[in-house]
Amino acid sequence: MNAGLRIIPILGMAEVRPGDHLADLVAGAAAGQGTPLLDRDCVVVTQKIVSKAEGRLVALDPDDLDARRVLIEQESRRILRRRGDLIISETTHGFVCANAGIDLSNVDDGMAALLPLDGDRSARDIRNALRAHLGVDVAIVVSDTFGRAWRRGLTDVAIGVAGLAGVVDLRGSTDSRSRELHATEVAVADEVAAAAELAMGKAAGIPAAIVRGLDPAWFREASITELIRPPAEDLFR
Amino acid sequence: MNAGLRIIPILGMAEVRPGDHLADLVAGAAAGQGTPLLDRDCVVVTQKIVSKAEGRLVALDPDDLDARRVLIEQESRRILRRRGDLIISETTHGFVCANAGIDLSNVDDGMAALLPLDGDRSARDIRNALRAHLGVDVAIVVSDTFGRAWRRGLTDVAIGVAGLAGVVDLRGSTDSRSRELHATEVAVADEVAAAAELAMGKAAGIPAAIVRGLDPAWFREASITELIRPPAEDLFR
Repeated sequence: MNAGLRIIPILGMAEVRPGDHLADLVAGAAAGQGTPLLDRDCVVVTQKIVSKAEGRLVALDPDDLDARRVLIEQESRRILRRRGDLIISETTHGFVCANAGIDLSNVDDGMAALLPLDGDRSARDIRNALRAHLGVDVAIVVSDTFGRAWRRGLTDVAIGVAGLAGVVDLRGSTDSRSRELHATEVAVADEVAAAAELAMGKAAGIPAAIVRGLDPAWFREASITELIRPPAEDLFR
Repeated sequence: MNAGLRIIPILGMAEVRPGDHLADLVAGAAAGQGTPLLDRDCVVVTQKIVSKAEGRLVALDPDDLDARRVLIEQESRRILRRRGDLIISETTHGFVCANAGIDLSNVDDGMAALLPLDGDRSARDIRNALRAHLGVDVAIVVSDTFGRAWRRGLTDVAIGVAGLAGVVDLRGSTDSRSRELHATEVAVADEVAAAAELAMGKAAGIPAAIVRGLDPAWFREASITELIRPPAEDLFR
């Protein structure tokens, strides 16, 4: 029924620069380490390299808290909470996260990386390029590291998907005792991002991983909006 | 640096009954399918089978909404939100989740499974029994399926840990460009639970999985309290 999963970090990728083609970099590095991409793989790429490749970089003095605040507000459509320097906001995409997802780590000094404008388009571009260049049919998840309400610690989640369901709806399926299941919409793209993070390692600078062995039924056209809870249905905003 | 991870579902486990020894059931099934447990594996077991083995079952007519409400309130120390039949509460353990984690699926008709009284103790008992009976040193994560604020879909998270860090603190580590990282406390036990869920499959009734290849530095004495955000530091409660 289920032979299990492999999570394969993609090592040896060169530093990503604006204009780079991530599909080629990822596919080259995967082949170079002896794990070429296969049909029905899901490749997880971090927001950081997607933002760099897409040139989503702006100058920001990390000590200029006013400039930082203005930038966060520009990238947000609604500020939810402030505590000290920390701002929790709803980004222009609808993600709720700290500091509008703006990132200073692993970026050149004096620069900040903004979230991709459209994570689904970023994912789709990579997926289409891999199909065109290599003839492989792989799904793509763009991941980022977000905090959560209620629980300590950060986890990686999806901020863009292509070819893989965001949420798999198991409502109406029956459990192993044939009673109807309730409320089992599983956020598989977020779980895929989290699984990949375990292999990539935060401080090791590994920006991509292959998740191999996912349920074939989960591969379909998809959108990150499946994972975004509209404010009106959210009890905690 | 990182050879990747394998997530191996443990198939063929018999239905768990009160008083069963999960360590023996898990180890037997793992060996029976040709993937015996190894040192430095992390075994993820679902709340459902832990609650069953520990006899955390109560009679509950699923159509008696009043009785259901009373039970949820008994298992909670604070009700956070109500909407229709849905109650979001802080359980006696400090978890924030729907319906105090009480579960009707995959349980005998007319019965409900409560959360384990102490998920860390549940995990530690399994870990100690595996060491005593098999001589293997494996970490244990007890997982459950929770909703989130802000994002649609459920993910599996940890509700008990033994031998594996809940949160890995990378603050003070440096990123690949030697700048100090901020706020990178990674919730590895939650990511391990999420990764395992991808292999277990919600409707397939697979109640355990092996996560193999985790960073050896993450194996240490631990507590689920690492993952519980105290109400006073939570901006969304």
